[in-house]
Amino acid sequence: MIRHFVSEEIMASDSFYRRNLINCLSGYKSLNLIGTQSLQGITNLALFSQVFHIGANPPTVGILFRPNTVVRHTLDNILDSGFFTLNNVTSEFYKEAHWTSANWEGSEFEATGIESEHLNGFFAPFVKNSPVKLACSLVETQTLKVNQTILMIGNIDSIYIDEKGLRKDGSLDLNLLDTVTVSGLDEYHVGQKLSRLSYAKPDKAIEEI
Amino acid sequence: MIRHFVSEEIMASDSFYRRNLINCLSGYKSLNLIGTQSLQGITNLALFSQVFHIGANPPTVGILFRPNTVVRHTLDNILDSGFFTLNNVTSEFYKEAHWTSANWEGSEFEATGIESEHLNGFFAPFVKNSPVKLACSLVETQTLKVNQTILMIGNIDSIYIDEKGLRKDGSLDLNLLDTVTVSGLDEYHVGQKLSRLSYAKPDKAIEEI
Repeated sequence: MIRHFVSEEIMASDSFYRRNLINCLSGYKSLNLIGTQSLQGITNLALFSQVFHIGANPPTVGILFRPNTVVRHTLDNILDSGFFTLNNVTSEFYKEAHWTSANWEGSEFEATGIESEHLNGFFAPFVKNSPVKLACSLVETQTLKVNQTILMIGNIDSIYIDEKGLRKDGSLDLNLLDTVTVSGLDEYHVGQKLSRLSYAKPDKAIEEI
Repeated sequence: MIRHFVSEEIMASDSFYRRNLINCLSGYKSLNLIGTQSLQGITNLALFSQVFHIGANPPTVGILFRPNTVVRHTLDNILDSGFFTLNNVTSEFYKEAHWTSANWEGSEFEATGIESEHLNGFFAPFVKNSPVKLACSLVETQTLKVNQTILMIGNIDSIYIDEKGLRKDGSLDLNLLDTVTVSGLDEYHVGQKLSRLSYAKPDKAIEEI
């Protein structure tokens, strides 16, 4: 059976119900810990499901920041310093990663026990046990008129990857790297590969590669 | 062992290698078929991995369109008509969904055999076998300076969900709905749940719920 929600019904529903529902609709989301540091030297670590690929040339990522939330520390640190790290989350520390979203007073690294790492003099801290770590610098920000969400674009300056998951063609084996994905607000999953598919052409059926 | 890529090395690498690598870095991505129709009545279906949650009040989604690619048909149809559909992909038809990205001359529905469906007079076509279908209308577009990517914001006007995956709290069981996720350019996965986690508070350890 199909359940149909019309616009008025969505808007009239309980806000908790609506947040759960709307956050699930787009499907599985990427999951990354963003590491930053204030100009006063206080490190910050925040869990994000709204990080996405923007382009490969130059290599850029986009991040959405909701207005007026606790994660504003992350945005403020990036705007002040110009730097941040992105770190894939694994099943080994996804619970600690989730815990970073509590309203901590000091650094989330110390509070949750996630170990930080400083690499090659980069200003922002990395997550030591993450298999995919990116050093990024701020490029631009734009505010979305619809709900004052801030879209931040970052340049990928440097990449650290656990070699076991790096294939010869440059792609990553996220199953092997144990990268975690999230649905909705609080449900975590690992991926289970179906297949890789051949380049799509009209005159040729799709094949597993 | 950790493989470290510095900026110059990323930019100097083969473009195929770089595209594979950069597209994998953010982790698992959402996967949706976007259905549109031209003012001349030709339907279009295109596979997107750059659809993301923007906000729940009002319920909005964002989509990134790369400049000057074949998927511009989708963008043109949305700009002309103001409407589109989003449809989760399942393991039953992810190969046909991948095939929509070939350079077809006519409608991708007919070309790939994915069955279309018109619901309640909505202008854009849905994917009949999708368990999560959204009727959306255009709100605004912005062009990103960094690489001329176009960010489109859509309002979620109406939602159709297979009831078997809709929980009492509004969240969706994406494992049960068989929703597919993608890594990189061509690798497809289903999700395998680790757990749902309790609301994060500083004075309380995280629990599975």
